[in-house]
Amino acid sequence: MKHKIIDPWGSGLLEDYEKIIKDFGLEIFHSGIFPNPNRIMRRNVVFAGRDLKIISDAINQRKKYYVLSGIMPSNEKIHFGTKMVVENIKYFQEHGAHSYILVADLEAASTRGVTLEEARKRALDFHIPAYVALGLDPRKTIFYFQSENREVMNYAYEFAKKITLNEFEAIYGSADPGKIMAAMTQVADILYPQFKERMPGIIPVGVDQDPHIRLTRDVVRRFKERKFFLPSGLYHKYTPSLDGDIKMSKSKPESCIELPEDIKSVKRKIKNALSGGRDTLDEHRKLGARIEKDMVFELMKQHLVEDDKELDSIYHEYKSGRMTSGELKEIACSKMEEFMGNLVKGIEHARKNIDRLNFVKFK
Amino acid sequence: MKHKIIDPWGSGLLEDYEKIIKDFGLEIFHSGIFPNPNRIMRRNVVFAGRDLKIISDAINQRKKYYVLSGIMPSNEKIHFGTKMVVENIKYFQEHGAHSYILVADLEAASTRGVTLEEARKRALDFHIPAYVALGLDPRKTIFYFQSENREVMNYAYEFAKKITLNEFEAIYGSADPGKIMAAMTQVADILYPQFKERMPGIIPVGVDQDPHIRLTRDVVRRFKERKFFLPSGLYHKYTPSLDGDIKMSKSKPESCIELPEDIKSVKRKIKNALSGGRDTLDEHRKLGARIEKDMVFELMKQHLVEDDKELDSIYHEYKSGRMTSGELKEIACSKMEEFMGNLVKGIEHARKNIDRLNFVKFK
Repeated sequence: MKHKIIDPWGSGLLEDYEKIIKDFGLEIFHSGIFPNPNRIMRRNVVFAGRDLKIISDAINQRKKYYVLSGIMPSNEKIHFGTKMVVENIKYFQEHGAHSYILVADLEAASTRGVTLEEARKRALDFHIPAYVALGLDPRKTIFYFQSENREVMNYAYEFAKKITLNEFEAIYGSADPGKIMAAMTQVADILYPQFKERMPGIIPVGVDQDPHIRLTRDVVRRFKERKFFLPSGLYHKYTPSLDGDIKMSKSKPESCIELPEDIKSVKRKIKNALSGGRDTLDEHRKLGARIEKDMVFELMKQHLVEDDKELDSIYHEYKSGRMTSGELKEIACSKMEEFMGNLVKGIEHARKNIDRLNFVKFK
Repeated sequence: MKHKIIDPWGSGLLEDYEKIIKDFGLEIFHSGIFPNPNRIMRRNVVFAGRDLKIISDAINQRKKYYVLSGIMPSNEKIHFGTKMVVENIKYFQEHGAHSYILVADLEAASTRGVTLEEARKRALDFHIPAYVALGLDPRKTIFYFQSENREVMNYAYEFAKKITLNEFEAIYGSADPGKIMAAMTQVADILYPQFKERMPGIIPVGVDQDPHIRLTRDVVRRFKERKFFLPSGLYHKYTPSLDGDIKMSKSKPESCIELPEDIKSVKRKIKNALSGGRDTLDEHRKLGARIEKDMVFELMKQHLVEDDKELDSIYHEYKSGRMTSGELKEIACSKMEEFMGNLVKGIEHARKNIDRLNFVKFK
């Protein structure tokens, strides 16, 4: 098969991702393309991209390029998907990228019913500290508030002229005035680092955010007034719902872990998670775990076990049946306790140093 | 008939305007509603409105209200429609209105292919001086550049959430991303004076601009977060094309007079204009002019003859056949020469004093 994802510790949702790659026209991600790939790259949790070679060339030839992402400051939690975005930003920061984080206060205010002031406060009190706790280097990051960035709004306006309603509907499935304004603003955000100087850029996202990247690439191709680089995309898999669905979602709170979340509640959820263990211990010892159906192993692979050898050892112990599902969950709970503790401490520490951030000052 | 426009010096296009009133659901304008109506109000060139009583009450009771209009700085000419807008702004300025003029540099840049810098320069070099020459009191006017007004853009964003695509298409006949962004920005412009303080406002426009007012009123009804006043609308007829079409248009340059325009060219166009004169002098003397078909008389009524008694006398002389079409055109040419001369001088004078304008300074 042409669209084959290599996953040495395979999950059961590979077919879904292979379909996405085919439907969206993405490149399959191979971790060899980047030097010193991070954990989620090495494990093919990062599974696809667009125009990755230009980024790998920029890294290897030490050319100027950027990484950009946005914060939606609508609530007081983030999720594992955000964690992966931050880990990829951290990777590119460590490999020479100019880093931009925008606070989508305008979008939060128009779609999530918070005021601009609340959105700004939440970003400063929680989201940015959480990003820092997860590995973002704030000293190497340029921040801006969407609502302050007139240049982004002015470009959004011009970009909108390049897209027809039919094209918009083809990309997003539907169109309404609010969605159109939000999407055109995101296009301008994605290109913002290039307003002053043309350079490649990479946008790490969950694959459901690809429409914004596709729209931006369509706009760039038509915007003859300026020769922007087509932005590259880097796509990670979802962290699956603990009940086995492809994506964790707050709509099923017992199968969803938020960041941060009280560790007692997290442990309870892990203990109830869909397991790859067999019905009886005898059977488990004999046949081994159906590891591709085990959501806790997937969580450990994506987030909890940093060292590949340790993961490999857990994988073989569990797959062979020597380790039980209960034992696997115990390890996961213990690692989660450490992770959540560090996260909460990291957020508090970062919050105290929030005044040192580089926010773009607009006239 | 229910929708009857009273026009003592009637033009042949009344039926079109009566249809517009009916189709758009407008109020018929009667000049008695406002104290000391201006020339185009007295002559029912201003023919319709929306929610005019609230404005007339504000005038009579000396309550706070505003008048607002926008400048589209895309080229170096304006037209007679703009002149009527300015005359109505002048009227409300003289009757207690807080006056706002926005420069739609963003819209000009995105739709007319000028840069923001060019658009700004044109507004300062030509459009604002022309408005001042036509009667705008710049000392009583607050100006702003659309591209600088983040508050307008931020509200545009929130307003967009209140409108569906179907509703947009019903109002504008079609929808595309560029048009949607431009329209939502216009909605925010129209309401801008109310962002700080709720008050009635009137928007004088050519009737083809009514969709923006309708959209704004729909948004206001749904925007429960703030109780804005529904903006009122005031609609003037088009200045007809010299060949008899309902609206002068640059697409037919020989039937269109721009402001300013070289007087020789204007005189040539007037001499070739559709006349209400009869085929022979004998017939003309006997039957009189078909004045409702005379485009030059309409031009004089709308723009060139200030005094009602003088217009009345010309009307009767011409209608009776005592005045020929050639004589009418001579009077029009002479009045036009005076008008254009004053306009050019007025623009030059205003341009020299441009630094005294009250532009909103945005942080």
